[in-house]
Amino acid sequence: MTAPTRRPTQVRLAESMLAARDADAVHAWLARTAERSWMHVERVPLDGLAGWLTEPGTGNLRHHTGRFFSVESLSVELPGAPVPRWSQPIINQPEIGILGILVREIDGVLHCLMQAKHEPGNPNGLQLSPTVQATRSNYTRVHQGKPIPYLEHFRDTSGHRVLVDIRQSEQGAWFYRKRNRNMVVEVDGEVEVREGFRWFTLGEIAGLMTVPDLVNMDARTVLACLPGGGAALTRAATDPFSEALVRSADPATPGVHTIGDVLSWITEVRTRTDLRVALGPLSGLPDWTRENGVIAHRGGGFFTVVGVDVRAGGREVGSWSQPMIEPRGTGVIAFLVKQIGGVLHVLTHARTEAGYADVTELAPTVQCVPEAHDHLPVRPRFLDDVLGSTRIRFDAVLSEEGGRFLGARNRYLVVETDADVAPDDPEYRWLTLHQYEELLKHSFYVNIQARSLLLCLRSLVPRG
Amino acid sequence: MTAPTRRPTQVRLAESMLAARDADAVHAWLARTAERSWMHVERVPLDGLAGWLTEPGTGNLRHHTGRFFSVESLSVELPGAPVPRWSQPIINQPEIGILGILVREIDGVLHCLMQAKHEPGNPNGLQLSPTVQATRSNYTRVHQGKPIPYLEHFRDTSGHRVLVDIRQSEQGAWFYRKRNRNMVVEVDGEVEVREGFRWFTLGEIAGLMTVPDLVNMDARTVLACLPGGGAALTRAATDPFSEALVRSADPATPGVHTIGDVLSWITEVRTRTDLRVALGPLSGLPDWTRENGVIAHRGGGFFTVVGVDVRAGGREVGSWSQPMIEPRGTGVIAFLVKQIGGVLHVLTHARTEAGYADVTELAPTVQCVPEAHDHLPVRPRFLDDVLGSTRIRFDAVLSEEGGRFLGARNRYLVVETDADVAPDDPEYRWLTLHQYEELLKHSFYVNIQARSLLLCLRSLVPRG
Repeated sequence: MTAPTRRPTQVRLAESMLAARDADAVHAWLARTAERSWMHVERVPLDGLAGWLTEPGTGNLRHHTGRFFSVESLSVELPGAPVPRWSQPIINQPEIGILGILVREIDGVLHCLMQAKHEPGNPNGLQLSPTVQATRSNYTRVHQGKPIPYLEHFRDTSGHRVLVDIRQSEQGAWFYRKRNRNMVVEVDGEVEVREGFRWFTLGEIAGLMTVPDLVNMDARTVLACLPGGGAALTRAATDPFSEALVRSADPATPGVHTIGDVLSWITEVRTRTDLRVALGPLSGLPDWTRENGVIAHRGGGFFTVVGVDVRAGGREVGSWSQPMIEPRGTGVIAFLVKQIGGVLHVLTHARTEAGYADVTELAPTVQCVPEAHDHLPVRPRFLDDVLGSTRIRFDAVLSEEGGRFLGARNRYLVVETDADVAPDDPEYRWLTLHQYEELLKHSFYVNIQARSLLLCLRSLVPRG
Repeated sequence: MTAPTRRPTQVRLAESMLAARDADAVHAWLARTAERSWMHVERVPLDGLAGWLTEPGTGNLRHHTGRFFSVESLSVELPGAPVPRWSQPIINQPEIGILGILVREIDGVLHCLMQAKHEPGNPNGLQLSPTVQATRSNYTRVHQGKPIPYLEHFRDTSGHRVLVDIRQSEQGAWFYRKRNRNMVVEVDGEVEVREGFRWFTLGEIAGLMTVPDLVNMDARTVLACLPGGGAALTRAATDPFSEALVRSADPATPGVHTIGDVLSWITEVRTRTDLRVALGPLSGLPDWTRENGVIAHRGGGFFTVVGVDVRAGGREVGSWSQPMIEPRGTGVIAFLVKQIGGVLHVLTHARTEAGYADVTELAPTVQCVPEAHDHLPVRPRFLDDVLGSTRIRFDAVLSEEGGRFLGARNRYLVVETDADVAPDDPEYRWLTLHQYEELLKHSFYVNIQARSLLLCLRSLVPRG
């Protein structure tokens, strides 16, 4: 007997994307899983947080082992920006964690092993998470917890097919050069499905993208790094919008800019942007106070650093304490999209954030907290195009990483537009989905918000 | 009249590579140019170096304007390495400079505008240099010099064809996160050829690669970032070695690893390597002394930081002073290459250097100063395969950046081998030339030494 010839990955991904199943069954499974696991989160003062120290001298918050992460300060210079110089608290987490999704063909269709998981910052309890979500401190068992299920498939990939394996950044406004290793690994053999885990097709997950706060940030970034299905999606296109969407994902479709021009533009932005940052002590930060057990901005803006005690059932550790970042307000994260010559193009913004490893990444057209701009004379560019539009294609509130951020939620939008942007605009370019796919093979081109939004956009391919 | 259809870039590059001209004419031009320009370099103590300060407190060396570069210290932790912790002097030059080559079709063949240029560290005077080689401090005219010729073509590329535009790293052992913008820009119109400049085909430059210390480091890195000519080189192959070489540059040729596997391996290395570095004060560095006007290692190893006074005729500034790094010994930089299934593969090493922006880059098979290892029990891997080989395909001594390094020379070698390396070796992989070409479209994958050596290897395609 010879092994059957495997069909091309793009074809198999497209078939998984176009597979739909009974959404009710998914919700019933989530409800059953929720009954068997729980998490209680209580706000407590940063002072005396169990296992955490305020370092004498610097005032930095760190774990007594020196592992996990610390809260320090970052001083930033960005000449020419509206605010050319500031300091802020920031999470420093130099360890590279693994965000891994195990995939397997079941009845000839690729399925992803997803976990329904609590995190202390989740606004709503369980969220759909990758198979594995582990910092190095987790998986080297600093906290003496239980072994992490399925981790072995990602630590030794020999004999498996690696579909995604790339380090990507996370929020550069809250993390100092945070990178996680995004992985998708395909196995052939049987895999035991443990309590709290379930196999999903890509189409099933796509169908859940509009459920508020359900698909978690880590799942979104990993799935966004998968190839999009390319020309194999063509049969799904049923109307001009989905035809333009599917064409945009096809490698054979030229965009209004070549990929070489896009890379040269990124080089230009990263060269001209003179970002200088330095980590420093958290104590004595101008404009920030540490009072009443929290670290807060004097003007009430940006975010607050708070402490929480956590007790959980059904995961590695029963209880722990940690600092978290609690942002102010719900953000708006939006792509303007436009059919140009029958091909959907996405308006991308070259955005600089102080915590990025490489200065600038490609961000959504709009990424802001609107209320933070209420008192300012200048509105973020394109924000009113998004909020005033009647051509909304995607609209859902999703939450950010619940392991570090407390109740961090953003409204994700995909909005059609007729807006024109000059082809040599210094900060914006129209990209195709396939161009994003090419960039996502490499680190630090596409920011975490844009990766989430790309997954939302891809979920608009009609299914089943 | 309509514009003629332009042939594909790979075809035009291949034709320029296969064009040869009279080498005597090149040498005669160099000799004439040398008669009209000169540079005198005198060693002087670091103390009292004109225009440079030793900062009170830190002992760092910096220019009185705060521009150009500074010499500071770097403390390094690399757990698991043979030397897991050290501190060293390092050049900190956060500005991104431009290394640019202007190209133009002359009689239907692409030509590069090269400059014969002095740098204080050049062991032999004039070297063949890019059209433009400028730090931001140079081109914003901090030193009040003359305008830089041809710079305008690289600062505003609108209306030109941009063939290369990517930031790449330089020596991570001597520079802290140095990046330069490597550019090749094609123009259509007439270009005035100024004194000291000349048009060269790629084949002409290839023919000069074996001349000791002639093609400078900046020219090598920029030319290495150009696409290699692909299948259009096929007609040049005249023997099994050149057939294997040309096949290796062809996008249609599979390698022993897929590019996806190579990227996953790079992710794996960059994830498992726990490099931690911190800039600090130059004074009080253990194992280093500042005596007799130089900063030197107590054991006499590595390099010395020295001061020089420079007087020059025929460039922007008449005279200046600066610190330089003077390395000990001549290095060996070598690729082992092997025909696998009729395709030339290059043995690449995943090398970590303290000054890299992203931990690890792909390096030559061997990159070391052999005499530095004479007293040590462990020889660098593959060094003896290189030095003992009788199958040497390329062998020339070339110098490194003469603007920062005094007399820094390396012996560049390409050596055929039958050596076997396990396909899952943690540190080495066999790559094709086309795979390198794909990686060179992005920043920080291929180190400066490997880029030089790729150009040496490509120069072995038979010409004319």
